[in-house]
Amino acid sequence: MTSVINVNLPEQSYEIAIAPGSLDQLGEKMTGLQLGKKVLVVSNPTIFKHYGERAINSLKTAGFEVASCILPAGERFKNLNSIQKIYDAALENRLERSATIVALGGGVIGDMAGFAAATWLRGISVVQVPTTLLAMVDSAIGGKTGVNHPQGKNLIGAFHQPRLVLIDPEVLKTLPVREFRAGMAEVIKYGVIWDAELFAQMEASKHLNQLRYIKPELIETILIRSCQAKADVVSKDEKEAGLRAILNYGHTIGHAVESLTGYRLVNHGEAVGIGMVAAGQIAVELGMWQKEETERQNALIQKAGLPTQLPSGVDIAAIIDALQLDKKVKAGKVRFVLPTQMGVVTVTDEVPADTIRQVLQAM
Amino acid sequence: MTSVINVNLPEQSYEIAIAPGSLDQLGEKMTGLQLGKKVLVVSNPTIFKHYGERAINSLKTAGFEVASCILPAGERFKNLNSIQKIYDAALENRLERSATIVALGGGVIGDMAGFAAATWLRGISVVQVPTTLLAMVDSAIGGKTGVNHPQGKNLIGAFHQPRLVLIDPEVLKTLPVREFRAGMAEVIKYGVIWDAELFAQMEASKHLNQLRYIKPELIETILIRSCQAKADVVSKDEKEAGLRAILNYGHTIGHAVESLTGYRLVNHGEAVGIGMVAAGQIAVELGMWQKEETERQNALIQKAGLPTQLPSGVDIAAIIDALQLDKKVKAGKVRFVLPTQMGVVTVTDEVPADTIRQVLQAM
Ligand SMILES: NC(=O)c1ccc[n+]([C@@H]2O[C@H](COP(=O)([O-])OP(=O)(O)OC[C@H]3O[C@@H](n4cnc5c(N)ncnc54)[C@H](O)[C@@H]3O)[C@@H](O)[C@H]2O)c1
Ligand SMILES: NC(=O)c1ccc[n+]([C@@H]2O[C@H](COP(=O)([O-])OP(=O)(O)OC[C@H]3O[C@@H](n4cnc5c(N)ncnc54)[C@H](O)[C@@H]3O)[C@@H](O)[C@H]2O)c1
Ligand SMILES: [Zn+2]
Ligand SMILES: [Zn+2]
Repeated sequence: MTSVINVNLPEQSYEIAIAPGSLDQLGEKMTGLQLGKKVLVVSNPTIFKHYGERAINSLKTAGFEVASCILPAGERFKNLNSIQKIYDAALENRLERSATIVALGGGVIGDMAGFAAATWLRGISVVQVPTTLLAMVDSAIGGKTGVNHPQGKNLIGAFHQPRLVLIDPEVLKTLPVREFRAGMAEVIKYGVIWDAELFAQMEASKHLNQLRYIKPELIETILIRSCQAKADVVSKDEKEAGLRAILNYGHTIGHAVESLTGYRLVNHGEAVGIGMVAAGQIAVELGMWQKEETERQNALIQKAGLPTQLPSGVDIAAIIDALQLDKKVKAGKVRFVLPTQMGVVTVTDEVPADTIRQVLQAM
Repeated sequence: MTSVINVNLPEQSYEIAIAPGSLDQLGEKMTGLQLGKKVLVVSNPTIFKHYGERAINSLKTAGFEVASCILPAGERFKNLNSIQKIYDAALENRLERSATIVALGGGVIGDMAGFAAATWLRGISVVQVPTTLLAMVDSAIGGKTGVNHPQGKNLIGAFHQPRLVLIDPEVLKTLPVREFRAGMAEVIKYGVIWDAELFAQMEASKHLNQLRYIKPELIETILIRSCQAKADVVSKDEKEAGLRAILNYGHTIGHAVESLTGYRLVNHGEAVGIGMVAAGQIAVELGMWQKEETERQNALIQKAGLPTQLPSGVDIAAIIDALQLDKKVKAGKVRFVLPTQMGVVTVTDEVPADTIRQVLQAM
């Protein structure tokens, strides 16, 4: 059974299709989108070993001419150098304007393949086939693409919407558990900022910290409702003019923690978990959110196997400094997304530095 | 006196302002566009020496915080490496989303500054201050930005419209004459494809091959009517879905000649001149255009000091091969823009290779 979520945008709408085993229908799903014959699959060695052959067979069966470009794995290769390699493959395989890049991988591959597609011949089609939970519920949807500058994350990029997002939940079986949990942080985020019902369903589950302990129906619900949340927000604010900022819940302090721990000790999802705990508490301190709701949130973060405390050794003054460097700073003021009730948040740049410091000290 | 031409686009419209001496009003013209305080001026050493100080003074007087990034001059530096340098300057000067890049230069600087602006923080503002005739009437308008791949021109890029195009015709005084003539090729193109009246006015001028022999009023007319032509076409077809293809008149064979002569012997404008002569003759052979009209066109090209013959040593078979590699090829068919009367063209992919060969052999 396939669940379909529509992302409605003025210039080009597209479907997010969620179905177990759908990797083998990739080619089929792409026919009917009026794409040219040529396809370049971008992936990394780990993912390609697991799923490359199936994706390529499916594309070939549907009549596509397929080439591939395998980039080294890891965030540290998310740079212009890797983009150059995709361009080289695009040239070698003579990708014309009608050609399509298929991103087969997590957020790193998706962001790079998307950026290369955005900028090759001033824009060719991209199809996202996310293979991590984070990519399925977050990075593959919404058209943000890009790479890192040696001195800062995601500084280089473009908005470029995919023509299709194809999610096969079965590929999550090979995903390392820590990566799965990182994705759960974003799922919990959707519960807090947008979908109290999703939150409640996760609350009702005994386990949340490993794929194999979670009922397939709950996984399906998680994927469908998270994708719906992201699609809703993106449809209402494609270019991040306003509403889309709420997706940064937990990310303000999260990013600071991530960068101060060198993007290694703490991964993105873990940092977002910590950031949500901090933001929730700030909302409580400012009298915006109820203490019991924060506790519900924190319990869920913990059930997902994510940390709820600052890693030892991270300097609180350094976090406060780092906030100032964040892209979300406007005219020198740090912007926070804060919950007011489960499923509802507000955006403010009126959080006193003292409150931030206090909350962090208590964590 | 300032002439203003509007480029009307669904997402963001902008003005092309043409006024002698307006370089000193750059800052002033930029206020009111709701741009942030920070500006990065991108230029090359030659242009910056002539005009950098005036541009920067004007910006500072208007209250902007200005930094600059000077890239080496020349088409061969229009590559990702130069873009990386703009990114480094953007980082160093902490350009936020509200910041603006000012492109002070010809098409090379404009394309690179535009691409960097398109991709820094997924898009910041760019203001185009074109300093060559070609950039004024063509490359600064319409939002095409990009760089070259080592193996192909303009393969990497993005659409990113400027917030303002500011044209000061006086800067043309320092432009080398060969560059001036290259720009005239595009102006003649607008006459043939869009504006028979512009064509007639140039026909009526005794000289056309050097700025100082041309009446200032005619220069003004040339700038205004050419910018209007480009603005009209771009407004009707921002992303090159159809109409915009007519801007490629003379460029099909022109690009082949340019690339076969290594982009040195023959420059872009000269190649376009040769390409227009060829396209005009193809249209005559196919019974689409009158012989007398081609002759009018060729006379004007000649009066502008541009070549009307193939450079010796260029192999005709090689040109025909090169056409197949062109970005304008769709499903293996070469697309030609051909005139049907002065100011009107049509697009066709039905030109027999024999006709192309014959016409080139006779040139
Ligand atoms: N574009 C957006 O809107 C957006 C949103 C959030 C995050 N991001 C970006 O996403 C990136 C993080 O993405 P991620 O969390 O997916 O990490 P990732 O892409 O680095 O993948 C994590 C690891 O899991 C491996 N892997 C992926 N799928 C697998 C599978 N099915 N089986 C086995 N191994 C698998 C990968 O090889 C990698 O080592 C960051 O660069 C971040 O900036 C982008
Ligand atoms: N984006 C578009 O729509 C578009 C359209 C056409 C061409 N282009 C691009 O434009 C580029 C060509 O642009 P161009 O013809 O302006 O060449 P250019 O930018 O290389 O400038 C030509 C030369 O003139 C010098 N120069 C510029 N202004 C001067 C001045 N006022 N006084 C003295 N010297 C000056 C420059 O330093 C350079 O050496 C190509 O890369 C082409 O691909 C883009
Ligand atoms: Zn995130
Ligand atoms: Zn041209």
